[in-house]
Amino acid sequence: MLKTPKQFVESLRELSPKVYIRGKQVKSVPDEPLFEPGVNAISVTYEFALEPEYEETMTATSHLTGRKVNRLLHINTNQDDLLKKLEMTRLLCRETGCAQRYLCHDALNALYENTHRTDEKFGTKYHDKFLNYLEYVQDQDLTTCVAMTDAKGDRTKRPHEQHDPDLYLRIVEKNDQGIVVRGIKAIVTGAPYTHEIIVLPTRHMTEKDSDYAVSFAIPIDADGVELVSRQAGRPGESQATLTSRYGQSTAQILFDDVLVPWERVFLAGEWEFAGSLTGSFATHHRLSCIGARAGLGDMIIGATASMAEANGLDIQKTGHVRDKIADLIKYVESFYACGVTSSIFGEETQAGNFIPEPVYSNIGKLLQGDHIYDMFRITHDISGGILVASPYLEDLEVPDVKERLNRYLQGREDIPTDYRLSVARLLEDITASYQGGWYAAISISGGGSPEATRLEIMRKYDFDERKSLIAKMTGN
Amino acid sequence: MLKTPKQFVESLRELSPKVYIRGKQVKSVPDEPLFEPGVNAISVTYEFALEPEYEETMTATSHLTGRKVNRLLHINTNQDDLLKKLEMTRLLCRETGCAQRYLCHDALNALYENTHRTDEKFGTKYHDKFLNYLEYVQDQDLTTCVAMTDAKGDRTKRPHEQHDPDLYLRIVEKNDQGIVVRGIKAIVTGAPYTHEIIVLPTRHMTEKDSDYAVSFAIPIDADGVELVSRQAGRPGESQATLTSRYGQSTAQILFDDVLVPWERVFLAGEWEFAGSLTGSFATHHRLSCIGARAGLGDMIIGATASMAEANGLDIQKTGHVRDKIADLIKYVESFYACGVTSSIFGEETQAGNFIPEPVYSNIGKLLQGDHIYDMFRITHDISGGILVASPYLEDLEVPDVKERLNRYLQGREDIPTDYRLSVARLLEDITASYQGGWYAAISISGGGSPEATRLEIMRKYDFDERKSLIAKMTGN
Amino acid sequence: MLKTPKQFVESLRELSPKVYIRGKQVKSVPDEPLFEPGVNAISVTYEFALEPEYEETMTATSHLTGRKVNRLLHINTNQDDLLKKLEMTRLLCRETGCAQRYLCHDALNALYENTHRTDEKFGTKYHDKFLNYLEYVQDQDLTTCVAMTDAKGDRTKRPHEQHDPDLYLRIVEKNDQGIVVRGIKAIVTGAPYTHEIIVLPTRHMTEKDSDYAVSFAIPIDADGVELVSRQAGRPGESQATLTSRYGQSTAQILFDDVLVPWERVFLAGEWEFAGSLTGSFATHHRLSCIGARAGLGDMIIGATASMAEANGLDIQKTGHVRDKIADLIKYVESFYACGVTSSIFGEETQAGNFIPEPVYSNIGKLLQGDHIYDMFRITHDISGGILVASPYLEDLEVPDVKERLNRYLQGREDIPTDYRLSVARLLEDITASYQGGWYAAISISGGGSPEATRLEIMRKYDFDERKSLIAKMTGN
Amino acid sequence: MLKTPKQFVESLRELSPKVYIRGKQVKSVPDEPLFEPGVNAISVTYEFALEPEYEETMTATSHLTGRKVNRLLHINTNQDDLLKKLEMTRLLCRETGCAQRYLCHDALNALYENTHRTDEKFGTKYHDKFLNYLEYVQDQDLTTCVAMTDAKGDRTKRPHEQHDPDLYLRIVEKNDQGIVVRGIKAIVTGAPYTHEIIVLPTRHMTEKDSDYAVSFAIPIDADGVELVSRQAGRPGESQATLTSRYGQSTAQILFDDVLVPWERVFLAGEWEFAGSLTGSFATHHRLSCIGARAGLGDMIIGATASMAEANGLDIQKTGHVRDKIADLIKYVESFYACGVTSSIFGEETQAGNFIPEPVYSNIGKLLQGDHIYDMFRITHDISGGILVASPYLEDLEVPDVKERLNRYLQGREDIPTDYRLSVARLLEDITASYQGGWYAAISISGGGSPEATRLEIMRKYDFDERKSLIAKMTGN
Repeated sequence: MLKTPKQFVESLRELSPKVYIRGKQVKSVPDEPLFEPGVNAISVTYEFALEPEYEETMTATSHLTGRKVNRLLHINTNQDDLLKKLEMTRLLCRETGCAQRYLCHDALNALYENTHRTDEKFGTKYHDKFLNYLEYVQDQDLTTCVAMTDAKGDRTKRPHEQHDPDLYLRIVEKNDQGIVVRGIKAIVTGAPYTHEIIVLPTRHMTEKDSDYAVSFAIPIDADGVELVSRQAGRPGESQATLTSRYGQSTAQILFDDVLVPWERVFLAGEWEFAGSLTGSFATHHRLSCIGARAGLGDMIIGATASMAEANGLDIQKTGHVRDKIADLIKYVESFYACGVTSSIFGEETQAGNFIPEPVYSNIGKLLQGDHIYDMFRITHDISGGILVASPYLEDLEVPDVKERLNRYLQGREDIPTDYRLSVARLLEDITASYQGGWYAAISISGGGSPEATRLEIMRKYDFDERKSLIAKMTGN
Repeated sequence: MLKTPKQFVESLRELSPKVYIRGKQVKSVPDEPLFEPGVNAISVTYEFALEPEYEETMTATSHLTGRKVNRLLHINTNQDDLLKKLEMTRLLCRETGCAQRYLCHDALNALYENTHRTDEKFGTKYHDKFLNYLEYVQDQDLTTCVAMTDAKGDRTKRPHEQHDPDLYLRIVEKNDQGIVVRGIKAIVTGAPYTHEIIVLPTRHMTEKDSDYAVSFAIPIDADGVELVSRQAGRPGESQATLTSRYGQSTAQILFDDVLVPWERVFLAGEWEFAGSLTGSFATHHRLSCIGARAGLGDMIIGATASMAEANGLDIQKTGHVRDKIADLIKYVESFYACGVTSSIFGEETQAGNFIPEPVYSNIGKLLQGDHIYDMFRITHDISGGILVASPYLEDLEVPDVKERLNRYLQGREDIPTDYRLSVARLLEDITASYQGGWYAAISISGGGSPEATRLEIMRKYDFDERKSLIAKMTGN
Repeated sequence: MLKTPKQFVESLRELSPKVYIRGKQVKSVPDEPLFEPGVNAISVTYEFALEPEYEETMTATSHLTGRKVNRLLHINTNQDDLLKKLEMTRLLCRETGCAQRYLCHDALNALYENTHRTDEKFGTKYHDKFLNYLEYVQDQDLTTCVAMTDAKGDRTKRPHEQHDPDLYLRIVEKNDQGIVVRGIKAIVTGAPYTHEIIVLPTRHMTEKDSDYAVSFAIPIDADGVELVSRQAGRPGESQATLTSRYGQSTAQILFDDVLVPWERVFLAGEWEFAGSLTGSFATHHRLSCIGARAGLGDMIIGATASMAEANGLDIQKTGHVRDKIADLIKYVESFYACGVTSSIFGEETQAGNFIPEPVYSNIGKLLQGDHIYDMFRITHDISGGILVASPYLEDLEVPDVKERLNRYLQGREDIPTDYRLSVARLLEDITASYQGGWYAAISISGGGSPEATRLEIMRKYDFDERKSLIAKMTGN
Repeated sequence: MLKTPKQFVESLRELSPKVYIRGKQVKSVPDEPLFEPGVNAISVTYEFALEPEYEETMTATSHLTGRKVNRLLHINTNQDDLLKKLEMTRLLCRETGCAQRYLCHDALNALYENTHRTDEKFGTKYHDKFLNYLEYVQDQDLTTCVAMTDAKGDRTKRPHEQHDPDLYLRIVEKNDQGIVVRGIKAIVTGAPYTHEIIVLPTRHMTEKDSDYAVSFAIPIDADGVELVSRQAGRPGESQATLTSRYGQSTAQILFDDVLVPWERVFLAGEWEFAGSLTGSFATHHRLSCIGARAGLGDMIIGATASMAEANGLDIQKTGHVRDKIADLIKYVESFYACGVTSSIFGEETQAGNFIPEPVYSNIGKLLQGDHIYDMFRITHDISGGILVASPYLEDLEVPDVKERLNRYLQGREDIPTDYRLSVARLLEDITASYQGGWYAAISISGGGSPEATRLEIMRKYDFDERKSLIAKMTGN
């Protein structure tokens, strides 16, 4: 049953995760101001699912239960599901900057496929257990975070080669009740204000790394779990037009010999499938990143056009402005087109769900990581210094100076100074603040580094076909 | 009825166009060696249409007659037709470098839409006349060239403002039989070895330019038509692996007061629709350009990978080679993805045929124009100097030196020197010869300059929607 | 006489400018915490001038008085002076992020040249008055801010065409004592903690704009002057390794019918020289921008290399890391090379001082504006998510978790976690915080937008010479 | 004594090298039409040295003999020599496309330094022998080619690891008279029409490669030497405005157990100095590449500006054209600035000559290799399709059509059609012909691949200094 935003917040209140932020333990996550923009952003995924105009985009019929579910918890049954998920991500992120909850979708679909594959090979029972979990998540309309990125230690060494065995999360014990895990998952987006943690391995493993080949789900407030968090957005900052309302927290999650019951374990030592599970998640997630950044792109395009106009420039007539905005659109829509193509050419897995075509999803991810810097460059270029030098809102209220500031800072005669400055503040907020830095850095390194995406493109591209074309042409 | 390649060549022999090349008049186009690679390239479009494995891609059922036609002469009736046309273009161009005949498709679809629009507005009868012509072209399985680009004179002036009224092709007379036209169409691809010329206007017109708002079809050997041509490819050159076989001619077509009978006239003075017809053709054609250059991209990717391997490098393991080839793929597949997306989001016109979504087709065209230079850069980088410094084939036959050359120029032990050098020659042929220069220059300026595509992106992008998003966000 | 840093701060205390920040009026600028990082940054320019190892770089012998002066107040007498100024700027900014005071140098040199030119043409006495002012500034070792950027209103209109005559600062009255000016100068870097304001026109003017052709100097606390400021850096933020110590404020400066005595007026209505003065300042200042961003580049290069190593990567051996750091160096040193070349090819003005060669200084400025985004991209790519997701310093002190965080977040075994995290925080501070956004935005729009620099390149490049080469080659 | 161009050609006639081209042995190199553009290009280096206006740039006083020599044979004695050499290269190449003879300079300077270094370490007598050779070359005003690039076989293996020991040129015997060498040097620019071959090793060697650590000089017609050549430019082609006059041949040089007398041997087994000699040559040569491509850049800038104007566009006023030409200048002058900076910061070697600063020369080389593709892109974009579709010269003479072609193809009214088309042909010649392909490919792979230059940048950059800055900043 779909939750309302209010029910979502209430449901968080029923949980008691152990969360630290800025040196203190948080008493109630939904009441902690530093997380408020994060809670708000997730809430939008609940809100939009209930709005009739978004019904087709935001919801789907579970192939498992036949019940209506939030599309973010849906298993894709065809290419159109993939395309709708992409569109949904764009829709949510152009509202919130980053809605975070698409991570659930990506992990659920990866586990759907890979529990099936593991069972096929080893006769394990992971898939059925996962289906139970899936039904629970869908029916309760939960939000899960995805704990994938390990701390990794020395990047040139495999998990078992590290000087400390706990630099990747690992199984320290298996017993009747379940597995016991120890270590850390670093950079878990949105973690504090979610219901559940889904843990995935972070890379391909070898036999000696089998203790590190582990996947499971666990409530956010399970015993032994601690979160060390960062704030979501820029709560309380008057200049933060968007991100005082919506933001993203990340957390380091510490696992202090945590017991995970067997019914929530989805991989436990079958190292042969760690890479496959990681790769499957990455393929889904890179498509999500494309949609997310296209949503951010919509904001940047709209605000840049508005800013240019407030400055008196006609975006269709001032040559260099027109060309730069066309390039801005080129950047955004070209990576989005890779997402569309990846969806349309999506493929059925052996488990029966659909996965994006990997070459295009990786190219799209690679492009969005590079292009976000170009997007920032163009909007800064067109907006000019006002972006980082507009007066503070508080100064625009000082009786002595406010009239003059308001008068002198007007651009085009028919556009109020207020509007011009509010667009400048919005652009500062999303491209030149702490949050802007986060968007940039996370675009390039979240969801797989450029190097990781290039490796995947190379692995999946059909070189044999291309080389045989050349052999034929050269008469060989 | 589909022609065989042989029937195509025979049908050219029945025509007697007035063609000049290198200072001489051509006696028989299909027997002129300088055109042979061009005739061959078009022939492939006939050959592939008869091959069972390509049937679905290469042919379609005419919505007009219900008969099977070459897809290059088909009117698109849905998005899938657009996508298949894109795939067909890639298929043909990875074989031939550039198959040229897709221009027919683009012009036929543009005329289908715009004769209908013009009739709706003015009560003219262009659409029915065009349908007759279409049936003729489809049934005879003809190839038409498309004469669009005017000489343009001073680029800052409209047609009627030029110092000489004939710098754009124009109607000098209308009489009972038809219209009389004078002037030149510059840069007509493949013209000498086609059956018919379809003339389109080259730009948006104003009322004073109405004599220049003209579109019609006419046989290649009509009275008063003369072609001044350039050779197709590199006929007779021993180093030209691909382009001694397949190439592209361009021609300047002179119209010396040519009478066009009314039944072949599709626009004659209705200046309001010149821009619409130009734009519609451009939208279709930009999609074709994307497919064509993706086909060239397939060759470059395959040959670059083969070259790297012949040099002893593992494309998956040598870091910088792997990353550069991944970028090569990124360039090709990202503009192709824009083509796929433009097809999938194609729209029905008021005439009932389908046209590619224009923002994505323009972005794809813009990208392929920029990226072809990057593609050349990467393949030159990876291949090394051998690309332009391999011994001539004739020198590899000199008794005194051939054994040593063959021995010393081997790369990886298990790849024969012959193969290495033949790939080097192929890459030289397509990226560093006269033909390579043609591919590059035509990719950026053919089918619309970067500036023209940026203008179109800006015209068609929904800025109102994006700006309203910002107004809402900033509370305005 | 060179001031010590302490004397500089004391001298600020003797002034009483009217400054607002965050809605309140500042009581004492050097005691306002929000300005402390700015005061510190300027102080470094005093400190380094007294250090023997920097003597040659940081000081010069005034050609006016023969006394030793801070090079930031020096009039360049040869190309070597220009080169040393460039090196000095790099040195100061790699310590402080942005030392701001180089603006004095740029304005003083521009006024030196243009007061002379104006006098030559009009027989005015600006140059002598300026020399008096220069001697005062040099002898007192002052810091001036440079108020150049006008609010500009509608960017498509000239000053006198604006709907409100005060959208550019203007002369509203001339009387026996001096001129009276009204309006605003927007985006004045470092203004609150300087001694003097030098006002320059912001653009080329026409005759009708002559009231806007105005330049003068005035104390920061002159009657009728008010500053609406923003904070310098990130004072008080525990994560802000660099910018809690050093930062840059900007201010809007309001001029409420301010009287400027004639001895401090350097241009008052001679509209013919507004563009020349603006251009001269811009040429000097673009060279300064190059040096400043090269200094920032030094930090980014050093920190990125350190971060890669802390992650276990050998920057000489891990292929993609090596290539990306090489590109990072390429970006920084190629724009710096334009600065060196601009200095070496510097030219003597008719006033006798030296000005950088303008084509190279503009190219360097253009490149640094574009490349800063590439620099951020590369450092984010190599550093990974830790850049924006490291635990807060306060959380690294929580007794319950600090040991585990310290243990798990180690990278290479022999590099302490502390060091790894401190480098991550530094990179976040300079590339992904409010201050990072400021660096990026100011790099592209401060000191002249990309469009302004392209215009200047085109104006100054010797096309006649290049075209005559072609005429000769083609036999014309 | 400086030779005249005529004396240069005569001196070639006195030599009888064994040269093959297109399957035939050449009887007389200076009389072979396929080499004529190459001979012409070298001749320009003799011609300009005798022109008074170029005396300072083109000649120098030998520090060895005190006699006036062509600067291309001069040993640099200070930074100004380096800068003049750079300027000379630009001057020669803007006339000829590529003057080739600067290779002499680069090899002579590298041998000057490294024979000295080798002697210092091993007590050998190479330096004195080299000085004798240098005096001979200077006094006779010779041209040498530089045979450096080995065939290299499998790129992942060192010379001694190849499956065939002769894939790198090697010493097969040392005897009383000298050394005997066998193998091939691939890609030797300009070889057929030079007097002497200077052989250099192509890479760093290890002890097991000592037979491959070899450097010497030998006459072009020495016993056992054979050249398999390619044509220089586009001799005899009517469209080839520049390159029918000036061009560049490359050759494969076969060494069939060639005896090199000891007095011309400069390295013979001292593997420790192979890398140093290679590196020193590369550093000098990369500076030459910068100058050469800047000269080509001058042509492209001039022709692009001329083409735009012939099309009716004002390069200062048409926004997108202005911005693109500004970028064209940016590309050319930014790599040239790296060359200037590398010269100015040049360093004295232990042998006493001066070598360019390596970081900047490598960055400049890297940039010119990348940017030549951007230069081609921009000129193709601005010129439009006419670049590859103008009528052949022979067709412009056909009586029947020439008047109309001439009339219709005019652009701006006051610029003759002839001029417009001659500029189009020139641009086709240098950017879209066989020769254009050669320029592009050789810019990126000649003088060191991008990967080689990145490696060198990384080796030479002072990371310790940068990292210590960070350690200080972070309090470590």
